[in-house]
Amino acid sequence: MILPRLFLFVSFFSLALCNEQFNSHILPRPLILETTQLREVDHEVKLQCTSWRFGVEANNLNPWKTVPLECGEYVKDYMLGRAYRLDLERVSNEAGVYAKSLKLSGDGKDIWVFDIDETLLSHLPYYADHGYGLDIFDPMEFNKWVDKAIAPALEPSLKLYKEVMGLGFKVFLLTGRSERQRSVTEENLINAGFQNWDKLILRGSEDHGKLATIFKSDKRSEMVKEGYRILGNSGDQWSDLLGSFMSNRSFKLPNPMYYIP
Amino acid sequence: MILPRLFLFVSFFSLALCNEQFNSHILPRPLILETTQLREVDHEVKLQCTSWRFGVEANNLNPWKTVPLECGEYVKDYMLGRAYRLDLERVSNEAGVYAKSLKLSGDGKDIWVFDIDETLLSHLPYYADHGYGLDIFDPMEFNKWVDKAIAPALEPSLKLYKEVMGLGFKVFLLTGRSERQRSVTEENLINAGFQNWDKLILRGSEDHGKLATIFKSDKRSEMVKEGYRILGNSGDQWSDLLGSFMSNRSFKLPNPMYYIP
Repeated sequence: MILPRLFLFVSFFSLALCNEQFNSHILPRPLILETTQLREVDHEVKLQCTSWRFGVEANNLNPWKTVPLECGEYVKDYMLGRAYRLDLERVSNEAGVYAKSLKLSGDGKDIWVFDIDETLLSHLPYYADHGYGLDIFDPMEFNKWVDKAIAPALEPSLKLYKEVMGLGFKVFLLTGRSERQRSVTEENLINAGFQNWDKLILRGSEDHGKLATIFKSDKRSEMVKEGYRILGNSGDQWSDLLGSFMSNRSFKLPNPMYYIP
Repeated sequence: MILPRLFLFVSFFSLALCNEQFNSHILPRPLILETTQLREVDHEVKLQCTSWRFGVEANNLNPWKTVPLECGEYVKDYMLGRAYRLDLERVSNEAGVYAKSLKLSGDGKDIWVFDIDETLLSHLPYYADHGYGLDIFDPMEFNKWVDKAIAPALEPSLKLYKEVMGLGFKVFLLTGRSERQRSVTEENLINAGFQNWDKLILRGSEDHGKLATIFKSDKRSEMVKEGYRILGNSGDQWSDLLGSFMSNRSFKLPNPMYYIP
């Protein structure tokens, strides 16, 4: 464990030097790091990677292709630990509070839009085999996984899904998945506990090649033209939420593993 | 220090109970907490407050009035430590990379919009006397501080400001401050090193009472009508960035101390 940590320390150290004000007194360093020094390295990695994650979640860093090498362990720990779960619960709870605060019209035109991947369904089992975002995305491999239709539900999202449905919202699922994946998507959603959605909107042949932001804006535009009011929108990508015909309120689920423009 | 920590622990413990899966074996607790137990409390507080901060920066939590009591120390540590500075540098660097990637038209219509408070100027000295966001906002007290015109620059923002200006962007400053504060604002900006902006837009009498999102969207709409292209927008509040006539790219500076709708 010492060598990779030393490597990380050196990378961050150079980075910190570019910025300034690093504790210059800790150089020259001995080749064998002591416990307190390792703790310093850990602290520095955590600080830098937390800052990276904020950049991601606030949509300042884009586009990005893979998790930075030095943040691989950090992202893995985040995804597997309580922090990811806590963040998901917080988004779900906050969205629930907002949903309950609204007075619906009762004409069946009030809708909540959900993205699917990393919003309703979790691909963590897949990403566990692909470095939790460290590897370049492999669409062939990923589609094989999707075809298995075994992705589990994100439990806090399932809770919100049932909640908004109980309140009388219509639920529209808007996903970047292709029409070819309709049946496997339905199968997976039902297996994971999602039921009774009103529309499942996938990419048709005319939508291929469109950026997600454009595709999803186009689809939201159609909803609005049909008289629907988009009151809530949940997604793990900013491209689920931004663009035109945005929802009254949007809820950004955490996802430090990949980025879709 | 033990009593407040115990209080925090109890608060979070109840919170965790609502969620589930907390280590139930650590109850009943002795009245005197040991070092490892204090470490557990610290860890739990950090985890919860980091999650809260993500909720803030991703715009999931809104509106909010004050920093949660249990996160007071956490926010203070964040603001005074390297983490806030690192986050600011990351936003500034990323915005700079984006700015450099653009080919400007050269017709003087390419603009970068900056918010002022907690974007160009820091009110950290003021908030240090007001619990780093723990106290309810006091406009009278805050205006007294603003009138002193001594708020320091956020250095990474000053770097970006000079950079985009050097690239040929026109710089528009769009602030929720009132027209009455124009001269003191100019004085403060110049003292802090900001110069040569093209427009300083403040709230006129017709803008009072408008939500910041509306006021800023209205002003961006005017810019667009005048033929300007808003290529970049920097702000610490989502109300600086969202709404209509949004910038091609927006940069959200961190601010866990207050929220403006």
